[in-house]
Amino acid sequence: MMHAVGLIAEFNPLHSGHQFALQKARQLSGADAVVVVMSGNFVQRGEPAILDKWQRTQLALDAGADVVVELPVTSSVQAADQFAEGAIDLLRGLNVHALAFGSEQADLDYLQLAKDLADISGSQNQFRQYNQTFATQLNEAIVQQTGQALTAPNTMLGLAYARATLAKDWPMALYPFARQGRDHDDPELDAHSASASAIRHALRQQQPVPEEVLPAATQAMIERLMPLNWTTLFPLLRYRLQTTPLSQLRAIYTMSEGLEYRLVQQLRPGHDFDAFLEAIKSKRYTYARLRRLALYTVLNLTQNEMTWAAAHPVLHVLGFSAAGRAYLHQEKKQINLPLITKVNAAMLQPDGELNLVNRADQLLENQTNRAQNYGRLPIMLRD
Amino acid sequence: MMHAVGLIAEFNPLHSGHQFALQKARQLSGADAVVVVMSGNFVQRGEPAILDKWQRTQLALDAGADVVVELPVTSSVQAADQFAEGAIDLLRGLNVHALAFGSEQADLDYLQLAKDLADISGSQNQFRQYNQTFATQLNEAIVQQTGQALTAPNTMLGLAYARATLAKDWPMALYPFARQGRDHDDPELDAHSASASAIRHALRQQQPVPEEVLPAATQAMIERLMPLNWTTLFPLLRYRLQTTPLSQLRAIYTMSEGLEYRLVQQLRPGHDFDAFLEAIKSKRYTYARLRRLALYTVLNLTQNEMTWAAAHPVLHVLGFSAAGRAYLHQEKKQINLPLITKVNAAMLQPDGELNLVNRADQLLENQTNRAQNYGRLPIMLRD
Repeated sequence: MMHAVGLIAEFNPLHSGHQFALQKARQLSGADAVVVVMSGNFVQRGEPAILDKWQRTQLALDAGADVVVELPVTSSVQAADQFAEGAIDLLRGLNVHALAFGSEQADLDYLQLAKDLADISGSQNQFRQYNQTFATQLNEAIVQQTGQALTAPNTMLGLAYARATLAKDWPMALYPFARQGRDHDDPELDAHSASASAIRHALRQQQPVPEEVLPAATQAMIERLMPLNWTTLFPLLRYRLQTTPLSQLRAIYTMSEGLEYRLVQQLRPGHDFDAFLEAIKSKRYTYARLRRLALYTVLNLTQNEMTWAAAHPVLHVLGFSAAGRAYLHQEKKQINLPLITKVNAAMLQPDGELNLVNRADQLLENQTNRAQNYGRLPIMLRD
Repeated sequence: MMHAVGLIAEFNPLHSGHQFALQKARQLSGADAVVVVMSGNFVQRGEPAILDKWQRTQLALDAGADVVVELPVTSSVQAADQFAEGAIDLLRGLNVHALAFGSEQADLDYLQLAKDLADISGSQNQFRQYNQTFATQLNEAIVQQTGQALTAPNTMLGLAYARATLAKDWPMALYPFARQGRDHDDPELDAHSASASAIRHALRQQQPVPEEVLPAATQAMIERLMPLNWTTLFPLLRYRLQTTPLSQLRAIYTMSEGLEYRLVQQLRPGHDFDAFLEAIKSKRYTYARLRRLALYTVLNLTQNEMTWAAAHPVLHVLGFSAAGRAYLHQEKKQINLPLITKVNAAMLQPDGELNLVNRADQLLENQTNRAQNYGRLPIMLRD
């Protein structure tokens, strides 16, 4: 009987800190298989990933992952709570009862903290107000409860995972571990550690990155960065805002409080995406939330579609090792979600399992003329 | 008391045949002012004009026009009947009782023919079926009536004008004249005459055009061709089709008989617009109709919006000569349509007089960073 541990990741791109995390997950949990729920081609901060999902799957398998399933755009481009719930849904679907995650504060009892917060709030929904940012409100409750502020991003994400296991009624053993590497947005790029954002910046500028930081396999993909970013997407956002009635813009996910007017009014000739973001920014909204909103708008993702997607999780398998294949085989009968290993045309149609993923990935396919979904098979790691 | 004659034109671009037409209109009608209803930035065959509406207005004034008003995209990108009705609405709005037009058959009694056809059909609507192309059906009725086929494009357009004066109950004296110059789609470009399409082709290829054909003023604008064409628009069409639910595509003007499925299904990686058009073409639809449909889709122009626009004509004055100014002054009190000589922000808002024109023109402004409407004043020809 094999046991699995889950790891939730973007691998944008996969660096030495991620290699460490894959080892740590296996070691702490004693699991036979590491199941990675990995964001597809779009990531949480509301932008395309720097490498496509197949490239990142290959890197993940090379670095020790046994199964890689896709966290679809409808979950991967979300604030922490919805991101976590989408990921836990998939781990539950694969019958995974353990979860490892890196954190700035590995010594907290995340599950107990999540329970305490649930007790305080009575309902998770209390936090779903946008008059302050969600993170701020949550943190105020945490300070009330623990006497200390927990603002580090991975600590907050760990707490979101713990809360999601409660919300989804799917108990998991949690294995937080101290992260190796710098904070997410630390600009330093030194020989021992570096943040993913510093690495992305270096790769885009075609600057060298030490191999201790970025594995040779990741470095080898530098010539094939995804040709999709906010520079290429902004003309589509501009066009969409210019040619869509406000009533339709209002249906876009998280387009609340008259934001549609603000977006349309702040389009200025000559502005690039950064200048546009700057123009629509206010205290009320974080940059990440506005970037996600901009991406939902480009993708025309409506509240209804996002609600539907959250209620219909799908296991799109991007890759597996021999152990991963054995684990999937073992769990075959327990899996009660659609398990997709080869994508056919029906899955991409309206109401198909991968319709919204396909809608988003088509923007990449337009640039590369290479299918991201249709006909693709999981990457199988040779022993 | 000044009298005016109307001329309906695209001037895409203005060539020697158009100079001849402006002279002929004045001469045949004996009018004091030539009022030109000119297509804005998008033309009947479903594509952007080669020069913007202000450039073409300047050329028109230089060539003898006294007033230039904009035929908005909602009328200019239309089959002959709707094109003609939109133009006649504007001439009626300016109290113009005469209309000159070039024709392959200048000796026909267009008004009588229009009346005869109205008698036959009982209702204009009988012709509005798309199971055959409209032109084919109309022509069959014409053959029945006159014993001869009238298929030449300007003859058909002249007949559409005559029919529109009946439909709009606005009697006009018609002055058909023999066109100078070649047929619309004749590829020849010689010293004496040339079709507008041959001239456009030459200009795009930066090939020389004889000055007898293309006035020096038009030639001088060759460096400032509109940076908008189906090569630049096709990525937007593709994106729109990929990210819009079929239910919304179905609302697009003339998206009948399940054409939305056909458009979405025929998107192929690597195809350009010509290959796409080829793929969606069938006997049922002409290329012009499909190109117009593609443009409506890019502009997200719905059936409701087009119906609304047809019922709300607006006189957007693009330019005038001294005589034109005097004519407008004389008619001031008779004009019962919105007369726009300076565009303010409210006119561009949803439900504003120029909202749909602005929606279309923004695609050009995105490329040039120069306003096509907001704040623009009519071009005034110096004496």
